Amino acid sequence: MSDSTQKPKREILVIGAGGVGTMACVALERSGMARVTAVLRSNYEKVVRDGFDIESVDHGKLSGWRPSHVVNKVPDASLQRPFDYVLVTMKNIPEITKIAEIIAPSMTPNHTTIVLLQNGIYIEPPMIDAFPTNAVLSGPSYIGAHERNGHVIHDDSDRYHLGVFHNTQLDHKYEQSILEDFASVYNGDGIEHAMVVRDIIRYRWKKALWNGIYNTMCAITQLDNAAIRRSGGEYSLIRPGMAEMAAIAKADGYDLGENIVDEMVDATPIELSFRPSMLVDVDKGNPVEVEVILGNALRVARREGVQTPILDNTYRFLKLIQNRLLVARGYIDEPRDIPTADFI
Amino acid sequence: MSDSTQKPKREILVIGAGGVGTMACVALERSGMARVTAVLRSNYEKVVRDGFDIESVDHGKLSGWRPSHVVNKVPDASLQRPFDYVLVTMKNIPEITKIAEIIAPSMTPNHTTIVLLQNGIYIEPPMIDAFPTNAVLSGPSYIGAHERNGHVIHDDSDRYHLGVFHNTQLDHKYEQSILEDFASVYNGDGIEHAMVVRDIIRYRWKKALWNGIYNTMCAITQLDNAAIRRSGGEYSLIRPGMAEMAAIAKADGYDLGENIVDEMVDATPIELSFRPSMLVDVDKGNPVEVEVILGNALRVARREGVQTPILDNTYRFLKLIQNRLLVARGYIDEPRDIPTADFI
Repeated sequence: MSDSTQKPKREILVIGAGGVGTMACVALERSGMARVTAVLRSNYEKVVRDGFDIESVDHGKLSGWRPSHVVNKVPDASLQRPFDYVLVTMKNIPEITKIAEIIAPSMTPNHTTIVLLQNGIYIEPPMIDAFPTNAVLSGPSYIGAHERNGHVIHDDSDRYHLGVFHNTQLDHKYEQSILEDFASVYNGDGIEHAMVVRDIIRYRWKKALWNGIYNTMCAITQLDNAAIRRSGGEYSLIRPGMAEMAAIAKADGYDLGENIVDEMVDATPIELSFRPSMLVDVDKGNPVEVEVILGNALRVARREGVQTPILDNTYRFLKLIQNRLLVARGYIDEPRDIPTADFI
Repeated sequence: MSDSTQKPKREILVIGAGGVGTMACVALERSGMARVTAVLRSNYEKVVRDGFDIESVDHGKLSGWRPSHVVNKVPDASLQRPFDYVLVTMKNIPEITKIAEIIAPSMTPNHTTIVLLQNGIYIEPPMIDAFPTNAVLSGPSYIGAHERNGHVIHDDSDRYHLGVFHNTQLDHKYEQSILEDFASVYNGDGIEHAMVVRDIIRYRWKKALWNGIYNTMCAITQLDNAAIRRSGGEYSLIRPGMAEMAAIAKADGYDLGENIVDEMVDATPIELSFRPSMLVDVDKGNPVEVEVILGNALRVARREGVQTPILDNTYRFLKLIQNRLLVARGYIDEPRDIPTADFI
């Protein structure tokens, strides 16, 4: 046990208690080093009454499990002990919700650290813009966990790379100590969930090669990851798309190596067929994370002058599908005028 | 009445008795100049028993209507008087059926003229390859007509441009006389259905600007023609896609003019929203005419060295969707190996 176990329990707010968020609550509480407040929405009444029922590859069966506090709205930090960490695991769809606005009530300036366990690339700068005195930790999750009305199936281990996203107004050493502290708490249950890394943006770019390509292209074609390859998509779209994403990363200062496309394709064996999360969302009629997974990468491409014809079109098609999903769910009205502005 | 009315009745085989084909049967029979044999499939028993029930913008209400002959397979030309014309109105999906193989039994060399009232660009050369001694007429239909089990709603007038697709082994004058004869029969009911033109390929390219773009992009995004424009698609995909198609046509020798994109967009008012036929097919799970509408155009682009990044990607996505539809309908087995060949 590290020295950090001697410190008082960290006050941690977890926003977004789907599969990722609930398993974060479990790991943090089980460390004995944290007191977790979980913000629930659709499953709030169920969990208050019965707790979570969890079948976890990391923690076994947990019946009627609850974190220290369960609330149904983001708490006002001025009315209680300040939060040390606000952990965000919500889906990140800026067309619908601004994460910074959601977490704002729970933030204490100069104190609360934001931890983003969410998909996407360059999702951190809006947090730093909104909370310039607070540190930001960033961790692209690889967990497999699905929650439905308080029942969680957690079938792939909760592991992620975790790093500082540097806030230029803060001291590096301070940010580093926060990173070490949070990782020690999250790993305090004896499992190495969080792998501390020096350069988290590199890991996010690497994940963007998978998420920005398989997720988006499977969502458009409604084919799973194996069927899209077998149907000719591996060479017509998947590999060229990944090569464009690697070129954006390189122009941004992150050379992922000559063999990165082969590595990313080989990382998912063809025998392992599944519907990527964005395709599952389209299947269900849910809006998708097109902006943080693909739009942000393409904004870097435009800034750096990288040509990305395949990803541009993937984005254009996916934005139109997103529009259809947003209208169908009532998040936006169907536009009445024809937009003429540039598409990014 | 022209001299052609003095000739014996033309023997005409109509293959594909959906909306387009049935209304062709009606026009041809009503001229009094043709004896039509219609090849029916799913509606054969129903039409033999009850005839067609038709509500037509051109012909009014027709109850229990039948052409001269109704058959359920393509007749063997050697067993009867040869057909003067074989009119094809089937959907053209080479992945499933080769039109040349289907019509082969009904063709008499040096005599039968093929008339293609089908979608697509450069759908005629495979016919000339298969039947080098026969003339080919070509007419991209604009009819609005839908058939279901013998009941036809015909709500947009049956009009089309009709021209010769030149067979280099045949004499121009012979082809021209055939064209005039067929048009006089089809228009013999007193309505100008067929508008004879000198250069049918130009009209097919023009139609490709609409079909190759709206049909394909609406099918991928599952948005109708108006919603795709209002959602930003007019400037991100529709207009750039049309401009690429116009560039292919120009490289092929058909300059459609500087304002063709504006003309084609303006041709469909934003107030008129409908689901293009290819989107309706995707809605129903039916395979789509991706090869004749888009693939053939892109093969011209590759031959002429025209860059078409947007249409290339449209084709790549649509081919994957087509693969999904073909597998789901059982037309092909799911591929087991990963193709590596070029995509066109």
